[in-house]
Amino acid sequence: MKPKAVVLLSGGLDSTTTAAIALADGYDVYAMTFNYGQRHDVEIQAAQRIGQKLGVVEHIVTEIDMRPFKGSALTSELAVPKGRSVEEMGEGIPITYVPARNTIFLSFALAWAEVLGAGDIFIGVNAVDYSGYPDCRPEFIAAFQKMGELATKAGVEGTPLKIHTPLIDLTKKEIVFRAIELGVDIEFTHSCYDPSGAEPCGECDSCLIRDNAVQEVM
Amino acid sequence: MKPKAVVLLSGGLDSTTTAAIALADGYDVYAMTFNYGQRHDVEIQAAQRIGQKLGVVEHIVTEIDMRPFKGSALTSELAVPKGRSVEEMGEGIPITYVPARNTIFLSFALAWAEVLGAGDIFIGVNAVDYSGYPDCRPEFIAAFQKMGELATKAGVEGTPLKIHTPLIDLTKKEIVFRAIELGVDIEFTHSCYDPSGAEPCGECDSCLIRDNAVQEVM
Repeated sequence: MKPKAVVLLSGGLDSTTTAAIALADGYDVYAMTFNYGQRHDVEIQAAQRIGQKLGVVEHIVTEIDMRPFKGSALTSELAVPKGRSVEEMGEGIPITYVPARNTIFLSFALAWAEVLGAGDIFIGVNAVDYSGYPDCRPEFIAAFQKMGELATKAGVEGTPLKIHTPLIDLTKKEIVFRAIELGVDIEFTHSCYDPSGAEPCGECDSCLIRDNAVQEVM
Repeated sequence: MKPKAVVLLSGGLDSTTTAAIALADGYDVYAMTFNYGQRHDVEIQAAQRIGQKLGVVEHIVTEIDMRPFKGSALTSELAVPKGRSVEEMGEGIPITYVPARNTIFLSFALAWAEVLGAGDIFIGVNAVDYSGYPDCRPEFIAAFQKMGELATKAGVEGTPLKIHTPLIDLTKKEIVFRAIELGVDIEFTHSCYDPSGAEPCGECDSCLIRDNAVQEVM
């Protein structure tokens, strides 16, 4: 029997590549997508298509009401920044940062892992292109893993928890290479930050970083 | 200006006493209650009344869909155990345990604290009467605090985070004493585990522990 892993799958390039890596590593994948008040659900539909295509065992979409937490472009009415240079993106913490988002996502993944009896969680965080996000750093992941072991029955009973971050040190170009190597259909993924349209805007930080990398590789 | 604190307020005796302690300690209290698929909302209504009575600055109720995480009496159709002795309650991890619940609750509190610019979170966990819950232990709280600092902008910028657990070492009797001392109207609180009726059942672990303590004190 294969070991089970919970994989956070947003439907973007990074999380899709992460799910493909978990499958290639021999895990039965349990995919988890969050609906946290995006103004449209293109991202969620993409995640569901990708889950089916990859062959995950089970896929759950969890509703999270993050609207009470104001102050982020991803969940509120602030404008998503467009057309910024890579240098500008690297300055400070981006306004697209959602407070404690990865902490919340990983907490739900931890709950599901406990129910499934899974000791492995995969998350596609990256510390290279998104260095401004505190919760994408290796020291955060290590601290979450330690906390997660103490939080659960499994931890009390001595079952180790492993938070896998296979993309953490990769450049976006390396992620695109890895995705192609694993047969990921990049066209199916949706990484855009701008929730105002069904198609990627091509101008937000996420689209720009991704499109640059794809052009370099292709 | 008073410092801000996020307080997890379920509407039970413990969290209400915790909120009263935060107020007595000089904090402006921002109360947070979760609706996580309880089969009725008595607990939430109680929490809202209590928040008003205590005089919190703001009170948000966050919807959390925990139904995908099966295996707990508090969110699924399993029966809540009734009429158990204190010895029976102490054996193993109770089936009323919700996987990673405090991790999820504290993660949302962390998000709100970041938005508010608050460095203090209060949670009414108790390691004495509920020793079977992994996420009520001091070592879990310490690990969460460390993780939370690394997760947020505030942590990156050097603002310390403190998770306050003023009840962690108190017996239920001591909690009742503290509540009375602070003028908490105990009759307003609702601690019952059984979601099938509007009135406390008087037979679940939570009712039994609470009623025993109140009888001893009164």
